[in-house]
Amino acid sequence: MAIDSLQARIRKMKNPSMVCLCPTYEALPAGVKDAAREAHGETLLGAAAAYEAFCCAILDALQDVLPAVSVVSGAFSALGADGVAAMQRVLAYARQLGYYVLIDLMRADLFSAAEDMAAACFGQLAVGGQRFTPYACDGVLTTAYLGSDAIRPFTQYCKDGKNVFLIARSSNKSAREVQDLLSGDRVMHQVMADLAMRWSGDLYGRNGYSEIGLAVGATNSAVLKRLREKYDRLFFLVPGYGAQGGYAKDAAGAFDKFGHGAVVMAGRLITNAWQKHSETGDDFARCAREAAVKMREQLTSYVTVI
Amino acid sequence: MAIDSLQARIRKMKNPSMVCLCPTYEALPAGVKDAAREAHGETLLGAAAAYEAFCCAILDALQDVLPAVSVVSGAFSALGADGVAAMQRVLAYARQLGYYVLIDLMRADLFSAAEDMAAACFGQLAVGGQRFTPYACDGVLTTAYLGSDAIRPFTQYCKDGKNVFLIARSSNKSAREVQDLLSGDRVMHQVMADLAMRWSGDLYGRNGYSEIGLAVGATNSAVLKRLREKYDRLFFLVPGYGAQGGYAKDAAGAFDKFGHGAVVMAGRLITNAWQKHSETGDDFARCAREAAVKMREQLTSYVTVI
Repeated sequence: MAIDSLQARIRKMKNPSMVCLCPTYEALPAGVKDAAREAHGETLLGAAAAYEAFCCAILDALQDVLPAVSVVSGAFSALGADGVAAMQRVLAYARQLGYYVLIDLMRADLFSAAEDMAAACFGQLAVGGQRFTPYACDGVLTTAYLGSDAIRPFTQYCKDGKNVFLIARSSNKSAREVQDLLSGDRVMHQVMADLAMRWSGDLYGRNGYSEIGLAVGATNSAVLKRLREKYDRLFFLVPGYGAQGGYAKDAAGAFDKFGHGAVVMAGRLITNAWQKHSETGDDFARCAREAAVKMREQLTSYVTVI
Repeated sequence: MAIDSLQARIRKMKNPSMVCLCPTYEALPAGVKDAAREAHGETLLGAAAAYEAFCCAILDALQDVLPAVSVVSGAFSALGADGVAAMQRVLAYARQLGYYVLIDLMRADLFSAAEDMAAACFGQLAVGGQRFTPYACDGVLTTAYLGSDAIRPFTQYCKDGKNVFLIARSSNKSAREVQDLLSGDRVMHQVMADLAMRWSGDLYGRNGYSEIGLAVGATNSAVLKRLREKYDRLFFLVPGYGAQGGYAKDAAGAFDKFGHGAVVMAGRLITNAWQKHSETGDDFARCAREAAVKMREQLTSYVTVI
């Protein structure tokens, strides 16, 4: 899939939002932890099994509501190899269910490590005569502080229908410490946007959006709006909705006049919605679905996806 | 270990350099690949077994020459869970041999993913009543584009003897696209240095160096020298030696007048040294050792570690 198919899925489901899967053990429902503990004890394998069961149940419950999912690799990687194995299964399951699948890499490698990681996500990693794609997905979110050497290994797959999103203005509070600094007549997050434009070359979809997009948080609506106006050919991932304080009204600034060109990301708002309703979280998947439906309603009260 | 113990190991071995383990399948010696293929076929598990055998043999051969090792997580992560399992064993083996062990994370996470990743490297990741440290190490190299929210989870362990290094000026060619931009009277890599100083608080070792350091490439000796003069309390990791074009004369600018405060990193120069001597690389570990010894000679002809 590429940026056109992401937009097509959003239009089909009339929902410009996606869920971030960023599990952490303590925040999982008791039932999920109990089942994993019974099978594997209190081990990293047990925690990984709990992550997988939790995420796959949420993917099941949301498949007719949400067009896309983002898998936060750091959350799974923290569990070591067992966590990464669980992440690979979650990625495969999300693709099987038809989601547009993004990996939030939160990383940027160089040289052979970058080439190999890009092949692992988008292409075919060669082991002698065999080929593997352990992290098959539709797009990655990465960071461009290292410049084009770290990004080109990924963008070379854009012509094959893959997307690369650069962190421009993240949604966390300390984002301003670096990303809002002024350089000449541009702030740093604009520098990232300019790099995305420069690296886009002729990589544009039918809707006019580049296969290389940006992550721009919903927590600073002025920045979001200004970037939307200036960079009308860059698709935006918009994190920070809900738990981090961004709202539908703020996120609305990310969209063009057709309600295109952006997708709003929510993590805890959806995945931890059960915590508002029960102690044990036995109905976590239903709560996640309700939260996702409510988020769709809130967004579409400000944004009409044509 | 903390920054004092890294310096102590450097002094003891009279060698301010470290090896970067960044394997890629195609570049491995034939014998290593053959053995892994016989045991596991041409699979990701086979590739991971080859990475592990190769890296552990190099760690064996270099243990009396080099004080420290950097493990590039992206290279191993590209193989999926099998690669990460191999990385965990390489990390454990390096610590067992007494190396100062750095993980080149090349990533920065936020929120629970950052807390969990920091616990996985430096602390104790809780799974119910059990505690795990899948990536036990002495320091991490990370990126501060997201600001303090992404770094604090790691620096909170500095008082327990852990180090955090921020990418300031990387050694790759495109580093300048972002890192050399001017912001006010500072270039971006200075912004990173200033953040490292601000976050250092009272985290200084006996030698006066902060537990929070910087990565500054050997490929731009003017930048390296200028940063050394201005930031005399920040320890430098210096990548880009050898294969990327940095030399001992350039790297020398990273050190203070006692030959302290920096460690030069080399990857392919050491790990792929066999490629200059043979087709098959049966003697890759001996070649790595010779390259490391030669690098020590070159460095110590410019820098005297007192």
